[in-house]
Amino acid sequence: MKNILGREIPEFVEGYGKVKPFGGAFNNLGEVTKKEVRVKSAVPGETKVLSTIREAIEKCNLKDGATISFHHHLRNGDYVLNMVLEEVAKMGLKDIKVAASSIFPVHAPMVELMKSGVITGVYANYMSGPVAEAISKGLLKNPAVMHTHGGRARAIESGDLHIDVAFIAAPTADTYGNINGVEGKAACGTLGYAIPDAMYADRVVAVTDNLVPYPACPIDIQQEYVDYVVAVESIGDPKGIVSGTTRITKDPVGLKIAKMTSQVIEASGLLKDGFSFQTGAGGTSLAVAAYVKELMKKKGIQGSFAAGGVTGYIVEMFEEGLFRSIFDVQCFDLKAIESYKNNKAHQGMSASMYGNPHNRGAVVNNLDVMILGATEIDVDFNVNVTTGSNGVIMGGSGGHSDTAAGAKLAIIVTQLVKGRLPIVVDKCTTVTTPGESIDVIVTERGIAVNPRRTDLIEKLKTTNLPVMTIEELKKIAEDMTGKPEKIQLDDEIVAIVEYRDGTVIDVVKKVK
Amino acid sequence: MKNILGREIPEFVEGYGKVKPFGGAFNNLGEVTKKEVRVKSAVPGETKVLSTIREAIEKCNLKDGATISFHHHLRNGDYVLNMVLEEVAKMGLKDIKVAASSIFPVHAPMVELMKSGVITGVYANYMSGPVAEAISKGLLKNPAVMHTHGGRARAIESGDLHIDVAFIAAPTADTYGNINGVEGKAACGTLGYAIPDAMYADRVVAVTDNLVPYPACPIDIQQEYVDYVVAVESIGDPKGIVSGTTRITKDPVGLKIAKMTSQVIEASGLLKDGFSFQTGAGGTSLAVAAYVKELMKKKGIQGSFAAGGVTGYIVEMFEEGLFRSIFDVQCFDLKAIESYKNNKAHQGMSASMYGNPHNRGAVVNNLDVMILGATEIDVDFNVNVTTGSNGVIMGGSGGHSDTAAGAKLAIIVTQLVKGRLPIVVDKCTTVTTPGESIDVIVTERGIAVNPRRTDLIEKLKTTNLPVMTIEELKKIAEDMTGKPEKIQLDDEIVAIVEYRDGTVIDVVKKVK
Repeated sequence: MKNILGREIPEFVEGYGKVKPFGGAFNNLGEVTKKEVRVKSAVPGETKVLSTIREAIEKCNLKDGATISFHHHLRNGDYVLNMVLEEVAKMGLKDIKVAASSIFPVHAPMVELMKSGVITGVYANYMSGPVAEAISKGLLKNPAVMHTHGGRARAIESGDLHIDVAFIAAPTADTYGNINGVEGKAACGTLGYAIPDAMYADRVVAVTDNLVPYPACPIDIQQEYVDYVVAVESIGDPKGIVSGTTRITKDPVGLKIAKMTSQVIEASGLLKDGFSFQTGAGGTSLAVAAYVKELMKKKGIQGSFAAGGVTGYIVEMFEEGLFRSIFDVQCFDLKAIESYKNNKAHQGMSASMYGNPHNRGAVVNNLDVMILGATEIDVDFNVNVTTGSNGVIMGGSGGHSDTAAGAKLAIIVTQLVKGRLPIVVDKCTTVTTPGESIDVIVTERGIAVNPRRTDLIEKLKTTNLPVMTIEELKKIAEDMTGKPEKIQLDDEIVAIVEYRDGTVIDVVKKVK
Repeated sequence: MKNILGREIPEFVEGYGKVKPFGGAFNNLGEVTKKEVRVKSAVPGETKVLSTIREAIEKCNLKDGATISFHHHLRNGDYVLNMVLEEVAKMGLKDIKVAASSIFPVHAPMVELMKSGVITGVYANYMSGPVAEAISKGLLKNPAVMHTHGGRARAIESGDLHIDVAFIAAPTADTYGNINGVEGKAACGTLGYAIPDAMYADRVVAVTDNLVPYPACPIDIQQEYVDYVVAVESIGDPKGIVSGTTRITKDPVGLKIAKMTSQVIEASGLLKDGFSFQTGAGGTSLAVAAYVKELMKKKGIQGSFAAGGVTGYIVEMFEEGLFRSIFDVQCFDLKAIESYKNNKAHQGMSASMYGNPHNRGAVVNNLDVMILGATEIDVDFNVNVTTGSNGVIMGGSGGHSDTAAGAKLAIIVTQLVKGRLPIVVDKCTTVTTPGESIDVIVTERGIAVNPRRTDLIEKLKTTNLPVMTIEELKKIAEDMTGKPEKIQLDDEIVAIVEYRDGTVIDVVKKVK
């Protein structure tokens, strides 16, 4: 069958199950149920502190076939996933499903465990590096399931993704399981992605390298959700966890795109008191923030909130009074961590509060402007950030689809050609985010507005910006690069791309 | 049948159902299930702000027989419960169950609604004033159900108490339902008792007199839990919400009891680094805190946390560095509100985190010393704080049973005779907290230790404190007052006293 975007998807996928086809960004709301949760009540006086990860696995009664989960705030510095899986393998457990909110190059040891059948399933919102490549090559028994950040929270809360044991990398934990992310040598700030895991898993284990006396205030994840605490030597490499300073691009092309983007924002009419904004940590994204900051100061505007993945640059804007608050699901650098630690208006949020479409209203619903990237964007404005143009998985939605769906103005900011390949294509290799959620694409050669946004097209007519159709933009790109060759993929499905509501927006095929 | 305390309880109570008899404070732990939650997903762009309480009731589709809930942080200054019920009555709804975490004299209009059949059920952790008296007289159709603070959270989370619509008095709310308790003219601090309601009710309505632009940081209850927001003129009378300053007693008897209590604490050996402590807002309780403070300073002790209902006096100890943190479910005065607002180590907690026995570990489990009151205490150390000696409901457990169960040393602090009646009796009129949870009673005439605590009896032998058996204490009291006459009660059950685990520890009979 084909879903509403015309993507060819089977009705049933072995190792995944029955497919609910994507039917539109807001087609699947209404009444939902958050699943019941099984909890082992604490016996007062009993300790939660265990000596080893092995003891925790045993106490949790982990069995073949179980699903274990991890969060990715330690990013490419994370040791916890590998430590736990090494122990799982040593214990002879098989057929384990790994639900990691994201997977990085550091998690390469998973590849051998996929080959040996210890790991047979993977759920992730984002993956890059050897694990992503191995999955693309068909080394995982069942198709991987790729969620969005909000969609993962939805899947966990609804019971679609049942977690037997959640292992939470805890920069600081106390003896009764309270966890904070702002202290300890592996401090990473908010722990927003781990919160659904803690609330819905059958068993929850905090793994920490900073076990402190009770209570570990300020608390990010409370004791009432944590069964056991294990102290280890190190949960991660700080160099991989936080970037020192995030910097604005100096590349003139990036700066040009950023400047044009700020002009689009200005023309949109959204730049007024109460303005809300999210951007990524890349150099061009930060440059957009810098131009927006200039405009806000010139116009004397105070925004309501900035959200995200938060960088020091956004914190500076907040500290200068340009935003009243920050919603933070993940701190990208030390300045963001410090701010989150010290300022009550720098508010942590769970992945569910951030982007889950199946609650009473996520933060993304209140975003005015979202700055996004793309690997490919097709003439219907569908965006691929999941696979490279060679078909290999090299990313995933993360918050892409969530914020695009919620924001009043979702802007793709990209160079028109990358690695000698055009970004605008006839058909994306994989669709991550549906075109209906994308309002405009800004490149150094031109700007294309989604035809649905007739209002925005009108507004941009009053500017000198190089607005054109997306077909025109595609032609400019192809005139530079030639028409790209269509890649050849195998028929085998190696990953399911779930939209945030749990429907299937696309599948990823095995690379040849 | 009789429960383990020998209290006569029917196996089935009309209007309540099958009775699970109390079988010991920790008899009912193990695996439990938190119920599934029905949620109406937000449609992005739709407003949550409604014009009137009536509109909210209609949007929530409230029907005859439904259960609506309220929290009591506005205490005797609360307007919200009456406003909502007035509208419910006007709309002709009948057979409504009111689950209010506590009920105060200000809620007197409920009495007429009980008579007219608008209200047929009441759930509360504490009640005083006209509603309590009316229930004692048999004016409510079904028996009221009295919970503990932690037990109410348990009942809500387990589904034993299903809430159709939760109405949350919100000192500040934004247009998308984020609520904070620290700003606005009715600021009351933490909103801990309302959190289970927000998380588990079918529909959640914030009623505020300080509707602010999005987002209302710092957030106590998040937007993802709130369906609708209604702005009203006033949610409460600040004079009834917070006491100006809580003061240490000047009464020499109270001071004597407090001093002896501090000596018991010192002798117990618990007064060392990491010490944790909770006390109430009464003058004698605060005097205990003052003596404990002196001892901590003299010994150079830093405690781990103070918990509670928090007063300015506890905040002072915290600010002087005597405690590293505060766990706060309810702020009793302005100083507590300010501290909670400004200090990240002054940590809010939900009623579940505070005292629910059916999660992975409540804060009460880590209490060293708890200072408690009593209306009656029997020779088995069972305590009544629910009914007066005339049998009329004038209180309820609140956190009494929760903290007594959790604390290593639960101390009843009381004058031996009150209102010409002895506090120590053969048999309590009502049992609120089981004797197994009570370690010692301190009166101006003597101290009795629970015989189970042979260790403490030994330790107190090294002091000059007037330790005696509880029978001796009773005799001293009776020598002063004469033996009290047994009150005569009707056979009709007007209230069920549920222990924190949902078993029935006692029933309250109608007064003649």
